[in-house]
Amino acid sequence: MANIGGIMHQLTGTAGALYEAIRDLPIVSPHGHCEPAWFAQNEAFPDPATLLVVPDHYVFRMLYSQGVPLEALGVPEAGRGADPREVFRLFAQHWHLFLGTPSRFWISYVLTQTLGVEAPLSAETADAVYDQIAERLAEPAFRPRALFDRFGIEVLATTDGALDDLAHHRVVAEGDWAGRVIPTFRPDPVLDPRHEGFDSNVDAIGQLTGEDVGSFTGYLAALRARRAFFKALGATATDHAIEVIETVWLDDPEALYQKLRQGSATEAEARAFYGHMLIEMAQMSVEDGLVMQLHGGSRRNTNVDVFQRFGRDKGADIPIAVDWVRGLEPLLGRVGNAPGFRLILFTLDETTYARELAPMAGHWPCLRIGPPWWFHDSAAGIARYFDQVVETAGYWNLAGFNDDTRAFLSIPARHDLWRRGVALHLSEQVTRGVFDLNDARDLAPLLAVDLARDAYRLRP
Amino acid sequence: MANIGGIMHQLTGTAGALYEAIRDLPIVSPHGHCEPAWFAQNEAFPDPATLLVVPDHYVFRMLYSQGVPLEALGVPEAGRGADPREVFRLFAQHWHLFLGTPSRFWISYVLTQTLGVEAPLSAETADAVYDQIAERLAEPAFRPRALFDRFGIEVLATTDGALDDLAHHRVVAEGDWAGRVIPTFRPDPVLDPRHEGFDSNVDAIGQLTGEDVGSFTGYLAALRARRAFFKALGATATDHAIEVIETVWLDDPEALYQKLRQGSATEAEARAFYGHMLIEMAQMSVEDGLVMQLHGGSRRNTNVDVFQRFGRDKGADIPIAVDWVRGLEPLLGRVGNAPGFRLILFTLDETTYARELAPMAGHWPCLRIGPPWWFHDSAAGIARYFDQVVETAGYWNLAGFNDDTRAFLSIPARHDLWRRGVALHLSEQVTRGVFDLNDARDLAPLLAVDLARDAYRLRP
Amino acid sequence: MANIGGIMHQLTGTAGALYEAIRDLPIVSPHGHCEPAWFAQNEAFPDPATLLVVPDHYVFRMLYSQGVPLEALGVPEAGRGADPREVFRLFAQHWHLFLGTPSRFWISYVLTQTLGVEAPLSAETADAVYDQIAERLAEPAFRPRALFDRFGIEVLATTDGALDDLAHHRVVAEGDWAGRVIPTFRPDPVLDPRHEGFDSNVDAIGQLTGEDVGSFTGYLAALRARRAFFKALGATATDHAIEVIETVWLDDPEALYQKLRQGSATEAEARAFYGHMLIEMAQMSVEDGLVMQLHGGSRRNTNVDVFQRFGRDKGADIPIAVDWVRGLEPLLGRVGNAPGFRLILFTLDETTYARELAPMAGHWPCLRIGPPWWFHDSAAGIARYFDQVVETAGYWNLAGFNDDTRAFLSIPARHDLWRRGVALHLSEQVTRGVFDLNDARDLAPLLAVDLARDAYRLRP
Repeated sequence: MANIGGIMHQLTGTAGALYEAIRDLPIVSPHGHCEPAWFAQNEAFPDPATLLVVPDHYVFRMLYSQGVPLEALGVPEAGRGADPREVFRLFAQHWHLFLGTPSRFWISYVLTQTLGVEAPLSAETADAVYDQIAERLAEPAFRPRALFDRFGIEVLATTDGALDDLAHHRVVAEGDWAGRVIPTFRPDPVLDPRHEGFDSNVDAIGQLTGEDVGSFTGYLAALRARRAFFKALGATATDHAIEVIETVWLDDPEALYQKLRQGSATEAEARAFYGHMLIEMAQMSVEDGLVMQLHGGSRRNTNVDVFQRFGRDKGADIPIAVDWVRGLEPLLGRVGNAPGFRLILFTLDETTYARELAPMAGHWPCLRIGPPWWFHDSAAGIARYFDQVVETAGYWNLAGFNDDTRAFLSIPARHDLWRRGVALHLSEQVTRGVFDLNDARDLAPLLAVDLARDAYRLRP
Repeated sequence: MANIGGIMHQLTGTAGALYEAIRDLPIVSPHGHCEPAWFAQNEAFPDPATLLVVPDHYVFRMLYSQGVPLEALGVPEAGRGADPREVFRLFAQHWHLFLGTPSRFWISYVLTQTLGVEAPLSAETADAVYDQIAERLAEPAFRPRALFDRFGIEVLATTDGALDDLAHHRVVAEGDWAGRVIPTFRPDPVLDPRHEGFDSNVDAIGQLTGEDVGSFTGYLAALRARRAFFKALGATATDHAIEVIETVWLDDPEALYQKLRQGSATEAEARAFYGHMLIEMAQMSVEDGLVMQLHGGSRRNTNVDVFQRFGRDKGADIPIAVDWVRGLEPLLGRVGNAPGFRLILFTLDETTYARELAPMAGHWPCLRIGPPWWFHDSAAGIARYFDQVVETAGYWNLAGFNDDTRAFLSIPARHDLWRRGVALHLSEQVTRGVFDLNDARDLAPLLAVDLARDAYRLRP
Repeated sequence: MANIGGIMHQLTGTAGALYEAIRDLPIVSPHGHCEPAWFAQNEAFPDPATLLVVPDHYVFRMLYSQGVPLEALGVPEAGRGADPREVFRLFAQHWHLFLGTPSRFWISYVLTQTLGVEAPLSAETADAVYDQIAERLAEPAFRPRALFDRFGIEVLATTDGALDDLAHHRVVAEGDWAGRVIPTFRPDPVLDPRHEGFDSNVDAIGQLTGEDVGSFTGYLAALRARRAFFKALGATATDHAIEVIETVWLDDPEALYQKLRQGSATEAEARAFYGHMLIEMAQMSVEDGLVMQLHGGSRRNTNVDVFQRFGRDKGADIPIAVDWVRGLEPLLGRVGNAPGFRLILFTLDETTYARELAPMAGHWPCLRIGPPWWFHDSAAGIARYFDQVVETAGYWNLAGFNDDTRAFLSIPARHDLWRRGVALHLSEQVTRGVFDLNDARDLAPLLAVDLARDAYRLRP
């Protein structure tokens, strides 16, 4: 196996042995942002830039931070029409900016392991590398389903709006390809009145389900119906995002619902409504067994100018400090002890690992701590995570790994980085005498795949 | 010496030598929650479950987090009457959950070093281990005083309510056993109007002391009298808990006191009163020399259902972010420069180590930083503590170690883990060249025992 | 080279090689607090205590924390007149308190490398060391300019009030000594209405510039004129301090300006005005190219008694938690995408490294992350910084190193500690396989000097 950005040589000794034992286990991907259409239609991926640069906010944010205009990188909308080869050249020319970042590991892995590119990326090799990738992408072995099989993916969950018809999922499920691609119910635009299209989304969910969304009860029924629809197509989980952690149980949600539908609610009331709906969702999870995910603390679209010209997810989502303890108290107070309820928490505020999440997950039966998320899904981020959660939460209150990516080709790279991190962590525990090698051998596959299967109720 | 959970083998080289030099030093235990009755009555401990599982919130919270009902673990009140052998079986069956946690180290140490159990704990060995422990507990060598002597405890401080008659302490002090067991003055239920029994506690302290608690002045006099009573029985310290750090100097505490006694104060006023009383306590410490301890940032009883069925201290106390700087400003502004005043701060918010506590303790003559507390009293927690406090506070502004435990048998284990952490830290400092081996040899016993003796004014 | 506090021996292998390659590079010091008069007048430094103890708040705060009165340390005002030899004896006697702190490294480096003192400092050697230093200081080779040259300082920036006449800078610039000593524009006392002398400062800036500060427009013009004056004398940067991060764009700053000048504004309005002025300063930076620095989160003078008796900067400035994301949103929303704008952020809240600063600097073209500041300018602080910023921000969004010191003699020591930290970090990256040795060799001088030159626009 080739040296990936130099990273192979470290895993010797105990770490190397632990890594070898889990390196080739199946990939369980319970949370991510791949397009279901890729697997339904199985078309060739377009050019290298459109595959590797344009959609990867880790990549273009870094180039933007060093003065490269987003237009020049082909980022839509304003950048639409940029020449993919020029985009790729710009990327190659700035490749040094990624030294020390996980993007460099992921992309190096994709280039060398998945695409078989051997030349080191640079301004000089940009065109040759571009051509080589373009050739590969035209081959049948590089179509989505073939890659999915080659990657050894056991199950891949996408993330889908509550109004989605899941047509692509149905195609995959009903076809003869054996790949397991399942949806995840992400209803925030129909739960949170601060979303632009909230009102029309509520109308739409009423029409879709035939429920009368004129009343709060009908609205809840419509949500229940959509959850059942997702579950029937294989979903095992829901997903929610929240900036400032706040849940609240309203005495009279019906009244506020009417006010919101009439457009006369305040910002604070809108926030409270979403806080209430998170508890309703938790209660529905108790009923239907869908695992609830909560991604907290990302402040979205902080660069208004970039947002207006290029839209969402353009690298200007920045973490803020959060308070899981007081924020979740109303939710946990209602359903935290309910048998069968499961809630997976994702934080961007690493100070909450040891202070809040580990103590909470070490007590509440429903809680699992999600893996290091986003900026923290990195070698040092993984090390800090283990250092700060394990002593209080143990291993069985963790949710294993998520790649959380929209970069399909990077999935094996991301799981590989995690598995290396697991092997390193466990070998250090053995060295420190926290437990012995036999324990480490048992824990390695648990962390690599079994906890994720278990946390997301994905066991085949 | 046997291998304890595998941890022995690491302490080789410099760390090993430093550890050997402090391993058998006397144990100074200036803050904890042992029952004075154990040492006054010196009765045999009951069965293994009642000794090791039922009272240990580190243990049952973890089992609860993985779905084991607290009733089945014998946790009072709801669990009273559970068969201890069944409780111990449940614990043994879930022993793997503690992999990676300090509880596994502590309990392994107790089993192997203190109780002489050699079989590894598991579902299969549960009954045999139970029987072996039960046998030991019946032996005279395993009575509290014998263990106290065998453990090499130089002094042990308990924590006692302001209304306590300290009868057990008196028995110990007046008897012929040489063990030094001293009380600590913990008056929060008579200081903080938000405690359930506040009003009747104030009445009681009035009766106990003969002071007229009809006035604020009389109330202060009663508190002074109780401090003197504790001091006469050997106390060198007081202890306070506070969730959100807030101190405040009231212009007219008498008026608020009357309002509180009449039951007409608001929640905010009650909080302010406690914030004021902390400053009064600090001022009394200046007078009488009792060291003040402040444990900040634990949000208690966050699981209301568990609280109602099982009471306090059931694993649902969760840390929150705190602000020591602005929170203590009024207190430090009044007494922070007073000669002889000493205030030891304990935090569960590790972000305050480097940001707040180390800079504060590196300036204020009164301040000492308490050791890693609760969830952070662990191998990695100790490493983070040293990493984050020493560069700014140095070593002499630290308060040494506290075991802070109600699990008497675990005291040697906890001091041992700290001493290992000290040896590791100092040997790394030598390796990094921060200072040389001679310095490390001087610092090791300082951190193991002398700082605690000094911080708590416990020198014999 | 002599062993400095024992620290030399660790830098072997890759770290040693990387360190050797950057150890003797020129010193670029773009932010600090040296007196320009030293270089203009080039007089001998006074006695050892006045040089090494009295002005160093790192030193006297630690002694104060252990009960040494500031008066006895000669700290003005209250301590003025103390015998320098007695002060130095007190310092030497408490030298052990600095074990584990960067001060011990810095001072050991100054003593052994700069002053050639070989005897270890202690109560016994205090007088001999004092005499030896005093002798050195009398030699021409220890005058400021000679040391500046010997230290290999390429450029040194001082920090100067907006009303300063920069006479010393002019002397240096117009003289025949080749040393480059440049001013930095620090206008807070004329921007922040909460500064004691704000009103008279505004009057003074009007007189200095001939602008009519009766109007807000005239006030802005006066500030622009002073920026131009500083720039003409070599300044490339401005500097601001802010406790709670808050910027705000006022709709009608003129009205509030008038209110402030009439003395009728509230505290909240004063704070808002400063928040607005930071944005005005940012806009002027877009115009004139001066790099903007923002030092956030230090709560000044928290010990009121010490402040009243000894004045500012007496060791009682304590960090608080900050929120860079929401605090800078108004400022970045106005100028964050402006070409040529550069803003360097300094934090004392290390939790913001990974959570806020690295994601922000990894997106906004204007942002650079300043080096570890104040308490965190230490071996472990530097390690935590790299661990937490690099994976998200990369290396090119960092601002290199600042010594930020008023202790001129310690400048080489501080850069040396940073260069050691750089070498250690890079060698660990190579060991972990993050990148290879060639990359590390390229990054070492970048981190040692080039990023600072670039960030501050100091290229010769």
